[in-house]
Amino acid sequence: MKLDQSTSIRQELTVKQFLPPQTILLPSPVLIIGTYGPDGRPNMMTAAWGGIASSKPPCISVSLREATLSYHNIKQTKAFTVNIPSEKYLKEADFVGMVSGRKLDKFKEIGLTPEKSRLVNAPIVKEFPYALECHLVRQVNLGLHTMFIGEIVGMVADSEVLSPNQLPNIERVRPILWGSFGSNAYYSIGNKLGNAFSIRNQLKQRRKSSKKS
Amino acid sequence: MKLDQSTSIRQELTVKQFLPPQTILLPSPVLIIGTYGPDGRPNMMTAAWGGIASSKPPCISVSLREATLSYHNIKQTKAFTVNIPSEKYLKEADFVGMVSGRKLDKFKEIGLTPEKSRLVNAPIVKEFPYALECHLVRQVNLGLHTMFIGEIVGMVADSEVLSPNQLPNIERVRPILWGSFGSNAYYSIGNKLGNAFSIRNQLKQRRKSSKKS
Repeated sequence: MKLDQSTSIRQELTVKQFLPPQTILLPSPVLIIGTYGPDGRPNMMTAAWGGIASSKPPCISVSLREATLSYHNIKQTKAFTVNIPSEKYLKEADFVGMVSGRKLDKFKEIGLTPEKSRLVNAPIVKEFPYALECHLVRQVNLGLHTMFIGEIVGMVADSEVLSPNQLPNIERVRPILWGSFGSNAYYSIGNKLGNAFSIRNQLKQRRKSSKKS
Repeated sequence: MKLDQSTSIRQELTVKQFLPPQTILLPSPVLIIGTYGPDGRPNMMTAAWGGIASSKPPCISVSLREATLSYHNIKQTKAFTVNIPSEKYLKEADFVGMVSGRKLDKFKEIGLTPEKSRLVNAPIVKEFPYALECHLVRQVNLGLHTMFIGEIVGMVADSEVLSPNQLPNIERVRPILWGSFGSNAYYSIGNKLGNAFSIRNQLKQRRKSSKKS
């Protein structure tokens, strides 16, 4: 089932470079982490170090430096939200990642609205299309960053971004991608390339056909 | 610094839906995890649950179910690679996620080439534009999935995908995005939306201008 015979010829011309270790994951997400301070003041920060951590229980991890206000807020409240900005909020997402909540109220400064989650002690960014509501379940100190693993206990989404299966649809959410340090730029999602798990179905059909013949 | 005054009007018309917890991160990456079995046989699997875990030391996490062959391979070898397929390898990436390495040699079946990493005991997928080489440093059992945290000790990349700063460039790598369960489809990267950290520079310039005036 070799899909492209010309590939091997092309590869012979490619030179592999052996490079020092770098934290380059493509694409990296743009996550806005919502927390409350001990005085109940809402804060948000932009994070790219994170991902889904498990299916059952549903968990997500985000890695933060001790220098951030959000790190200390999560340690205290044991809760956070992961908000996904749509591309029309690019400037807001970029701004939120560049200033500290110690110096100013980022919500007020940028004109976004904190709404208390019904399930966890953390604010949701009302204007963003959807958010995951998380209870802190594990902390893993790795060095400069501590990984905060949160159990996702609920999700809040704008009705207009949902698929018929009531889940946020990427084509309606239009999330932002970060190109990491190789480009240091933000990107939109592009064209649909194909349905997931379609190759398996093609193989199954091929096997069925060969059994019949 | 409210960037879009019309937003607040639009938001009033949006209905927020309160939904059960779901592992929906947009976008999710498409990661091909490379490992060796105890007999030295190379294997690869597709994973979407993962992300950068820390900057110093540089670490990445991938979450795997115990049912997978890769889970047991990593437990034994304490090493893995994270390979990023370009969009022209969509079918291969999809296939690799749908069959078990226990049943067949996925490299042979799909026509990809395992090349031993120079730094860790795991194979790199030669045809893919770049790979992170990882030593296992931590395991976190979360339930159905175990999170394997690897220190990135090196990176191998095709020279043609590198930026002038010698880092993989997203526009040349052309990675695949997975739309998660709301669409269950794959997407390409889209248009460049802007440079990261540009808002801060705009603000700095504005402050400079106001000081001068």
